[in-house]
Amino acid sequence: MAIFAAMPSRTLHTVLSPRLLNIYDVSNCIVVIIDVFRATSTIATALYNGAARVIPVDTVEQCIQIGKNTGGITAGERDGKVIEGLDYGNSPAEYPRSFIEGKTLVLTTTNGTRLLHMALNAGAAEVITGSFPNLSAVCDHLVAQDKNVILGCSAWKDRFNLEDTLFAGAVLNRISEHFTIHCDSSLMAMDLYSLHRHDINRFIRRTTHWHRLASYGLEKDLEYCVKEDLANVLPVYRDGDLVCSL
Amino acid sequence: MAIFAAMPSRTLHTVLSPRLLNIYDVSNCIVVIIDVFRATSTIATALYNGAARVIPVDTVEQCIQIGKNTGGITAGERDGKVIEGLDYGNSPAEYPRSFIEGKTLVLTTTNGTRLLHMALNAGAAEVITGSFPNLSAVCDHLVAQDKNVILGCSAWKDRFNLEDTLFAGAVLNRISEHFTIHCDSSLMAMDLYSLHRHDINRFIRRTTHWHRLASYGLEKDLEYCVKEDLANVLPVYRDGDLVCSL
Repeated sequence: MAIFAAMPSRTLHTVLSPRLLNIYDVSNCIVVIIDVFRATSTIATALYNGAARVIPVDTVEQCIQIGKNTGGITAGERDGKVIEGLDYGNSPAEYPRSFIEGKTLVLTTTNGTRLLHMALNAGAAEVITGSFPNLSAVCDHLVAQDKNVILGCSAWKDRFNLEDTLFAGAVLNRISEHFTIHCDSSLMAMDLYSLHRHDINRFIRRTTHWHRLASYGLEKDLEYCVKEDLANVLPVYRDGDLVCSL
Repeated sequence: MAIFAAMPSRTLHTVLSPRLLNIYDVSNCIVVIIDVFRATSTIATALYNGAARVIPVDTVEQCIQIGKNTGGITAGERDGKVIEGLDYGNSPAEYPRSFIEGKTLVLTTTNGTRLLHMALNAGAAEVITGSFPNLSAVCDHLVAQDKNVILGCSAWKDRFNLEDTLFAGAVLNRISEHFTIHCDSSLMAMDLYSLHRHDINRFIRRTTHWHRLASYGLEKDLEYCVKEDLANVLPVYRDGDLVCSL
């Protein structure tokens, strides 16, 4: 790991809440949108299972309209629940290959899709999405590119959350040596990951998000979202769509 | 510790950056302003050494004006350096009893005094300041009052910092059982503290703030700021002044 040494010229910062994004210079950065429970886990899964594209949108109205225009499946959640008027929810389990292959998914979620559009508006060079199911694809891509990186945690209504930070720590654990890191958020994320990496299923039961979602019977869903590389593709934002990078 | 149990009615939240303060309902809360390096360490020390009061102000101009009006000592820093036009800096070592006893200190700092005024403007029931030198006084007070608590980290120009979060973890380690805690920031702060509590002097050498300030030769200063109970008083904000609570 390169901390405070005259080492790699690339920088990496971890942003703990969308509210903190504009403190950082996002231009010319690759921004990784992280929304472990569950938007970016679902995006990876749908694309891994052959979805043609995922269109992330901010509002329910946009979701319905774009669903009509594209013939896509409308999906989304607010506060962890399926939204009335949309076809499906925000669970990776809803998108097996037998259902989603070749289709367009139009997705709106509480936190992740909002941060994605904030990053685009802030002038990010590239926006990708990451969660444990596509950890390796994200890490390999970040190492291969010669760009500064922002790990963007979607948080919960702007409040810091543990699971997105844990994923930032998992990425850092693999790739920090390639970057110069003057960022306390990143150091903390690495600590958090090193403390809990061998016991993640127990760890997530402590999070506020677990208690919010598990009451809807989503335990299996949440455990899936913290398993590594089960849907190991790289979702990249291009012209309005998240598509698999080739 | 009471997490998600129908237990204490009092809540506690940790706010990781001033930018996140207004997500929380601050009214009727005791807000603990935390700026370990170095404003709240210096405030505790000056009051412990007999200062009549510390007047926290936002701007250098206010500092000079109020210094003139009160006959107080003007002090402050921006980006870790003494400000031209002010008498003294933001180091606890500058305020021994032989110098500060009975005097008024007018203090402006980069992060801590700003958060203090934000908390007041947000309607906090009480504002106190905390750092390791007055850890016990802070904890005893929070337990004794029947109020919700916000642990407010001053951060660095709105960026998360490790040392303020570490202090939040130290407070939580002592008093969390008295509160209901649905707050991932607090859980993370406790993890951070439990991971580093026995090796704090090594830990602070990893922080970005250490590298910022140690280049000015402030290593001893920073080590003082993370030692427990060397200036164990309770600074309380009353009518414009921080004074020792009796």
